[in-house]
Amino acid sequence: MDRSKREQVAAALEELKIELPSWGFANTGTRFGKFVQAGAATTIEEKLADAGEVNRLTGCCPRVAVHVAWDFPGGAASASRVAEEARRLGISIGSINPTLFEEQSYKFGSLGNPDPEIRRMALDHIRESVACMRAVGSRELVLWFADGSNYPGTAHIRDRKRWFEESLSQVGDELSESERMLVEYKPFEPAFYHTDIADWGMAYLMAQKAGSNARVLVDTGHHYQGQNIEQIVAWLLSEGMLGGFHFNDRRYADDDLTVGSIDPYQLFRIFYEIHLERWETGRLTPISYMVDQSHNLKGKIEAMIQTVTTVQEIYAKAALLDFAALRDFQKDCRLIDAEECLKEAFRLDVREDLESWRAQRGLPANPLRAFREGDYLRRIESERAGRNRATGGYV
Amino acid sequence: MDRSKREQVAAALEELKIELPSWGFANTGTRFGKFVQAGAATTIEEKLADAGEVNRLTGCCPRVAVHVAWDFPGGAASASRVAEEARRLGISIGSINPTLFEEQSYKFGSLGNPDPEIRRMALDHIRESVACMRAVGSRELVLWFADGSNYPGTAHIRDRKRWFEESLSQVGDELSESERMLVEYKPFEPAFYHTDIADWGMAYLMAQKAGSNARVLVDTGHHYQGQNIEQIVAWLLSEGMLGGFHFNDRRYADDDLTVGSIDPYQLFRIFYEIHLERWETGRLTPISYMVDQSHNLKGKIEAMIQTVTTVQEIYAKAALLDFAALRDFQKDCRLIDAEECLKEAFRLDVREDLESWRAQRGLPANPLRAFREGDYLRRIESERAGRNRATGGYV
Amino acid sequence: MDRSKREQVAAALEELKIELPSWGFANTGTRFGKFVQAGAATTIEEKLADAGEVNRLTGCCPRVAVHVAWDFPGGAASASRVAEEARRLGISIGSINPTLFEEQSYKFGSLGNPDPEIRRMALDHIRESVACMRAVGSRELVLWFADGSNYPGTAHIRDRKRWFEESLSQVGDELSESERMLVEYKPFEPAFYHTDIADWGMAYLMAQKAGSNARVLVDTGHHYQGQNIEQIVAWLLSEGMLGGFHFNDRRYADDDLTVGSIDPYQLFRIFYEIHLERWETGRLTPISYMVDQSHNLKGKIEAMIQTVTTVQEIYAKAALLDFAALRDFQKDCRLIDAEECLKEAFRLDVREDLESWRAQRGLPANPLRAFREGDYLRRIESERAGRNRATGGYV
Amino acid sequence: MDRSKREQVAAALEELKIELPSWGFANTGTRFGKFVQAGAATTIEEKLADAGEVNRLTGCCPRVAVHVAWDFPGGAASASRVAEEARRLGISIGSINPTLFEEQSYKFGSLGNPDPEIRRMALDHIRESVACMRAVGSRELVLWFADGSNYPGTAHIRDRKRWFEESLSQVGDELSESERMLVEYKPFEPAFYHTDIADWGMAYLMAQKAGSNARVLVDTGHHYQGQNIEQIVAWLLSEGMLGGFHFNDRRYADDDLTVGSIDPYQLFRIFYEIHLERWETGRLTPISYMVDQSHNLKGKIEAMIQTVTTVQEIYAKAALLDFAALRDFQKDCRLIDAEECLKEAFRLDVREDLESWRAQRGLPANPLRAFREGDYLRRIESERAGRNRATGGYV
Repeated sequence: MDRSKREQVAAALEELKIELPSWGFANTGTRFGKFVQAGAATTIEEKLADAGEVNRLTGCCPRVAVHVAWDFPGGAASASRVAEEARRLGISIGSINPTLFEEQSYKFGSLGNPDPEIRRMALDHIRESVACMRAVGSRELVLWFADGSNYPGTAHIRDRKRWFEESLSQVGDELSESERMLVEYKPFEPAFYHTDIADWGMAYLMAQKAGSNARVLVDTGHHYQGQNIEQIVAWLLSEGMLGGFHFNDRRYADDDLTVGSIDPYQLFRIFYEIHLERWETGRLTPISYMVDQSHNLKGKIEAMIQTVTTVQEIYAKAALLDFAALRDFQKDCRLIDAEECLKEAFRLDVREDLESWRAQRGLPANPLRAFREGDYLRRIESERAGRNRATGGYV
Repeated sequence: MDRSKREQVAAALEELKIELPSWGFANTGTRFGKFVQAGAATTIEEKLADAGEVNRLTGCCPRVAVHVAWDFPGGAASASRVAEEARRLGISIGSINPTLFEEQSYKFGSLGNPDPEIRRMALDHIRESVACMRAVGSRELVLWFADGSNYPGTAHIRDRKRWFEESLSQVGDELSESERMLVEYKPFEPAFYHTDIADWGMAYLMAQKAGSNARVLVDTGHHYQGQNIEQIVAWLLSEGMLGGFHFNDRRYADDDLTVGSIDPYQLFRIFYEIHLERWETGRLTPISYMVDQSHNLKGKIEAMIQTVTTVQEIYAKAALLDFAALRDFQKDCRLIDAEECLKEAFRLDVREDLESWRAQRGLPANPLRAFREGDYLRRIESERAGRNRATGGYV
Repeated sequence: MDRSKREQVAAALEELKIELPSWGFANTGTRFGKFVQAGAATTIEEKLADAGEVNRLTGCCPRVAVHVAWDFPGGAASASRVAEEARRLGISIGSINPTLFEEQSYKFGSLGNPDPEIRRMALDHIRESVACMRAVGSRELVLWFADGSNYPGTAHIRDRKRWFEESLSQVGDELSESERMLVEYKPFEPAFYHTDIADWGMAYLMAQKAGSNARVLVDTGHHYQGQNIEQIVAWLLSEGMLGGFHFNDRRYADDDLTVGSIDPYQLFRIFYEIHLERWETGRLTPISYMVDQSHNLKGKIEAMIQTVTTVQEIYAKAALLDFAALRDFQKDCRLIDAEECLKEAFRLDVREDLESWRAQRGLPANPLRAFREGDYLRRIESERAGRNRATGGYV
Repeated sequence: MDRSKREQVAAALEELKIELPSWGFANTGTRFGKFVQAGAATTIEEKLADAGEVNRLTGCCPRVAVHVAWDFPGGAASASRVAEEARRLGISIGSINPTLFEEQSYKFGSLGNPDPEIRRMALDHIRESVACMRAVGSRELVLWFADGSNYPGTAHIRDRKRWFEESLSQVGDELSESERMLVEYKPFEPAFYHTDIADWGMAYLMAQKAGSNARVLVDTGHHYQGQNIEQIVAWLLSEGMLGGFHFNDRRYADDDLTVGSIDPYQLFRIFYEIHLERWETGRLTPISYMVDQSHNLKGKIEAMIQTVTTVQEIYAKAALLDFAALRDFQKDCRLIDAEECLKEAFRLDVREDLESWRAQRGLPANPLRAFREGDYLRRIESERAGRNRATGGYV
């Protein structure tokens, strides 16, 4: 079976594309401040270069997610130039993320703001984002809303829900057949009393109202403690409503840590649900796998490589499950056999198989080591250090 | 405004009917054992008598929820006799709860069981429950499922979802126009890895598939830590899918404590969302308010009276809100004013208003005191003590 | 009893002093950015002026907590000037908070840093803070450490514990009899895997090792979901180790919301434990009541007034408890009577009593309204607006 | 290094003894009922036989923990007979667990009960347990208290703390040099508002007051969501106060699932802290490793074998860590290298090494398979089926 195992791993890796977030290469932090890295990226060009480097080393990250306000400061007009730069680096622009939080106008919300002017402004920004999407040849709009309220009684929850429905269905109407909108949910932060789209049920309803192109996006860090994420994934699959993921790990809140650092078995179970559905239906549901990590102590590019290879490793393990046996055990309620069947795949050490696949594709066997042996980091640190200064802080 | 306040309280109390759970009068406990009360009810006749006593003292609890396996041991055949007994006591049978967990057959689930025989058996029990419902003149079927799994990989989540959909839509089809089905959700216990209907989103989808008579039931103890229950209530109201409540309080899990004992402000905010929607629409959404508490240290009947009067008190406070002012503050994002407007009503001491309403209706001003001054408890304790012995235990 | 109630409220209010945090008047935010207020304070002079205004209106906030790096940029040398400015405004400097997180050197910790140079630097900063404390005539050093790690395996937990012990016992040795050190704990943020002083047990041990002048500080927002804060307070009281509080409210993490906005009953139960111990012992344990809120949507000064008056209100309610009756109910395990005794005091509307106490002291009956009627806000907004610009942001 | 790896695994396995809970072989359940197994044990003889079978197959479970009220119904008088039966089966009695919850007298607590008679009764039961301990030749007393309260205001937290201190220090005084007492903590269940010994800090203080023979026992299921258990372990190690473990897994509350079923990486990190301390000090802290699982869907004996082999596997992995390298990475704050060093050991597939160790000891390579191939289960099922009937239930 060793040969077949290697082939299965290779097949799984062939199909797995992981989108990188442009903001994952920039200095980020907590409200207590940012720890600045000399090599962090500040311009979209730098972010693309870093993403290109990760793709060069891993061979599985052909796309970069962008945040409109940060990456297309010139709006749609500047977008095609960005797309060209990406192309030059052997990658392309992936999902388009409107930026609907930072600006002072959004103090009380964007699409959920009681002020119709602000709602319109937010909707315009989404439309501009769609224009950017088209300009760069992308087809995926990812919508995360920081909207919510911080104190009981201060917001009209049903009104805000209705405003969201209206705007999202407008956006949905304007998308073409081949474009899609992913609606993200998050239980809290930065809103601490209520968040307008707080859980998968709310995102599901919003996606329903937004039309046939809308799906739900699951950020693995956006759940309550103890919530069963893989069950949500299974339900969304069953409803045909799973659109994609933002991968990261966390222990408490939305900690945005590197993938698998806290609970690797959880991610394995998520992939198990996806592989199982595909094994049963023979269909590959179009799911966008995106990284969304932004913790700032590990080296930015190293952390990204670590995450990408971890996703590959866990995805490959889940592909090695003996689905036929598992299904039989489940049918017969043979609990221990079913569970051990699952754990059997998790236990497998697939790193040699990964290395072998990389070798076949002309990739470095160990991308992290290769990165360290190269001089990319030294180069960008000397180029960028001057621009990377601490800004902001608690007060 | 004092006069008007008293009238508003009276109007709120007039419309508020609280259904009592038959099992709330029986000895219950934790897996570590039960602390037995001499006066606890064991037969349906005793439970009805206790519920009748609570209604006699509070005047707002005309209905009793029953659990089919515990309260109609003879099935539908015995149901009309039970209904008659209730009538004799001045009350009636309210919601009908199929009992789909305790039996050994349900070890691996009821409607979600991989064994089609067990699924059929569960469906038959629900149909028998519908027959009971009709026999007692009730129109409300409440469905809570303990179904789930305890170890990763042991259950096929999507299959189980489908089995639930099939059965629930069959039940839905068989209900008449005036009957309805409430689908409850619960994140965990007794299933510890996944619960088939774990959150409001899952209950919502199940209710959708079950047809136009199905709604969602919110048990206030069935949520994740930190989850915003009143937002869920607002969303369900907005979707026309809120069917009712199981009231209780909790600090950690599903503790089934008396209402308002841990977080009274939370219940107030739930009622605020309901009153607000009604103030805006002029419509009274048909919401079934049911108690579901079963903690076993307080005297069973005393605990029920305490809960009922607490619900009245908090419901009345929420009715006193200045909705017009609040809406304006919300529109203008005057956060402190909006919040203080809400807290203003919460702060009000409405107990004199409650007493005055009770006096007008010929009810004791303080139902708990009246109960203690009466001899009901002494009587049932001497009658029932022999039958109330500790059973079960951890091992 | 009305007269006595008013007197009891007055007595409780007389003894209640609430310390305000200088940083509570500055623009703060989340990692997603800050919503800037025109009137926010940036200099220590402005912060003191704002605190003085709150004290002028409420009469119970004579002290201001300061953060050394932000408020004494010149170190101890600048401290006496600050103290004088405070005095001019009718207030004084309260607790001294070393700033041990923001600086780039603290990327991997302060007193817990593996690098002895950084540990020494942190210790020096604490000593400088003690010098500041003496320069301003304060006697309270408040130590909160952001130290921790973000990924399993990256930090040596026992080594770090030892380094903390060594440094804190050194600081403890250098304090005089009349000075004290409060050690704060926090389960997470900004460290997401482990925090060196994560819970009350860890803070207790650290305070023990720091010597007889050290106590534990309880920040009401620094707990796990569902944790019983009042029990911790009771244990610390029982051990003579309760030093003070940072008051705020929260729903999920450390949300730093205004006090009582999410769970007012919880704060009431905390005060109940304190009043009970005092009623029993006749001793007033020296507890520092400090506000630590920093959410940034409500007007800074208005939010502070709201918090201060809420603390007064809840503190006064808890003082009105019938402790003798309660103790008897507890002894006899009369659960409902004991609980209702507690709730009876919580239900009381004491606002008129507060107003009466204010009138007697020549204070405005409604400090928030008085603030709005005054022109302080307009004045500072016009003076400060230019300096308050958004800085920082997610990336 | 393969040879050395195998030797390291063997050395780790040699020292690892896992104590089995007698109650883990009995029918247990949730408050919603028990699913009965034909082969479950009801008498202490049956429990010992089952434990003996697990030990026969795994070779690492020489001791059985007993619960006094369930396993020594005749008290100390019956204890020596039990010890003899154990000896006959090749095992011995391990920790002694007083049973201080189930009885009706403990409705309001045991050592924390306001009634001095009940406190005395509880203390007497502990003394009887000590007598049992001596009668069976054990030296370990494990104290878990279900004591707490369910409603705010109903219990006097500081009084109860004092009563615990008094009783525990009395018990501590009566222990001999070679005997020890382990104090367990648990945040909630069966008490839902406050639990007298709720967290490690409280257990630590109690152990301190109980004298030099007392240590803290960590049940891996008794923590708040998101709490860092391995940090608690590291602190207790550092203080010389770690006494032992109750192993199980959980997702939400105290679910008592088989070990490693939900979060295997967490247990690995716990063992890492223990191995690291030992690698540094060269000392093997006496830690009692006990299983405490009681979920009732998997076959009782199979579940126990699964847990034991999982503990072995994870313990062996943690022993394979490259501690010298890890320490260097930690000192230099090389986060990714340190983390990968940790994960490297977790990733290792050590099952062949385990099999090889078993072969050397004359044990079956796969204990679960060996158990299934044997006829033990069939035999006990036919012998015991008649006695195993469902008892108890929700009402």
